[in-house]
Amino acid sequence: MSTPLKTIDTCFSPALFEQEKSKGNIVVIIDIFRASSSICTAFANGAEAIIPVAEVEEAKNYKSKGFLVASERDGITLDFADFGNSPFNFTREKVKDKTIVYSTTNGTGIITKALSANPAAVSVGSFLNISALVRWIEQHDFNVTLFCAGWKKRFSLEDTLFAGAIAERLMQTGGYSTTCDSTHAAIDLWSMAKNDLRGYIEKAAQRSRLREKHLDDCIDFCLQCDFTTFIPVFQSGRLKGIE
Amino acid sequence: MSTPLKTIDTCFSPALFEQEKSKGNIVVIIDIFRASSSICTAFANGAEAIIPVAEVEEAKNYKSKGFLVASERDGITLDFADFGNSPFNFTREKVKDKTIVYSTTNGTGIITKALSANPAAVSVGSFLNISALVRWIEQHDFNVTLFCAGWKKRFSLEDTLFAGAIAERLMQTGGYSTTCDSTHAAIDLWSMAKNDLRGYIEKAAQRSRLREKHLDDCIDFCLQCDFTTFIPVFQSGRLKGIE
Repeated sequence: MSTPLKTIDTCFSPALFEQEKSKGNIVVIIDIFRASSSICTAFANGAEAIIPVAEVEEAKNYKSKGFLVASERDGITLDFADFGNSPFNFTREKVKDKTIVYSTTNGTGIITKALSANPAAVSVGSFLNISALVRWIEQHDFNVTLFCAGWKKRFSLEDTLFAGAIAERLMQTGGYSTTCDSTHAAIDLWSMAKNDLRGYIEKAAQRSRLREKHLDDCIDFCLQCDFTTFIPVFQSGRLKGIE
Repeated sequence: MSTPLKTIDTCFSPALFEQEKSKGNIVVIIDIFRASSSICTAFANGAEAIIPVAEVEEAKNYKSKGFLVASERDGITLDFADFGNSPFNFTREKVKDKTIVYSTTNGTGIITKALSANPAAVSVGSFLNISALVRWIEQHDFNVTLFCAGWKKRFSLEDTLFAGAIAERLMQTGGYSTTCDSTHAAIDLWSMAKNDLRGYIEKAAQRSRLREKHLDDCIDFCLQCDFTTFIPVFQSGRLKGIE
């Protein structure tokens, strides 16, 4: 008897998340510009752990207890924080062996949402760790939810394209199937964009937002594949980088 | 001084609808399989008006007052209703000069949601009236929201493809612009699908749902362009077919 195929679901926004569909799944959190790229960079540079917090007040409390805090809203670093949400902030010098408290506009709140579904695991994906992430997902006998952070509940192109990139690779292993319209759309958009990802991304609203705030220096970096083999996975209240 | 371009926003699901973005806009309701196709068919066949109601109880009340009632949930015609949600039910013989009360799983509830935004107008779009609808939109000096019904709050391919088809035509007039990621995605998916729409639609989850319920006889009809020039527009509590 052949093994049944694992399934892939894609969720374009926290407002579309269905708990019951992700129960027992591996959930991949996707916020390409910039939280998931920054989190992968932090582990690549030796961070010990990342504590994601949704609320600013919670981040402030951690700061008063001596934690290193990365926190921003709408691209602006909050005044009490050590640094904001650019991957370039998470240098080896600053983060090696450190536990970082992390709160951003879109990325960290959805980890809490993902956990509410009782998933098998919550991980963080970006182009920076895509190959390692796909290998890790494949090794497990769980269905997959690709959970895009979007922007303030809106659909976002860059998160969708990454969901498409992951879904395409998983489908190519022969071990997965999908009946999810969002996954089909993500794969097809990725197939259109992948030969000129940098050019395609020019359409994305978040690309313009970052440009207006002069925060777009990290675009090329965030679209780079396989900068690291670390996979951030949520364990006991924090993200740990596993290999 | 050149006239500023009108904008196009696309909303993939009622769960993503932002009232403040649609204030003063023309909102186009899209539920290709099957509500918006059926509504366009009803006007093509001479219906006087359609009263959309979200709740089954409300539809039942109208029935007891002698109205013709079309009502279904998950593809099943409700027992008190005169007929369900297939466009083939809305024949000239049955609907000519009649006012029909209409309640479906996804399509009619979002009309109420659209109205809550204080739009300039709420209209109904389908492939069956696409050219007339585009001409009518163009003639007005309003921004546009393409509001996909989806399926139980989920993203749906067929509604997205139609949004892309409308958006592409509006962009081609030179009078519109968009900074909305969902609109870009819809246009790009439409550009992939349009040369073999019937084949592309095979991926759609709603295609499979209709097949399983033996309700897929209307697929080809619903994907047919310009069956009618009527544009259903909401006026004083009901949809009227304008030309």
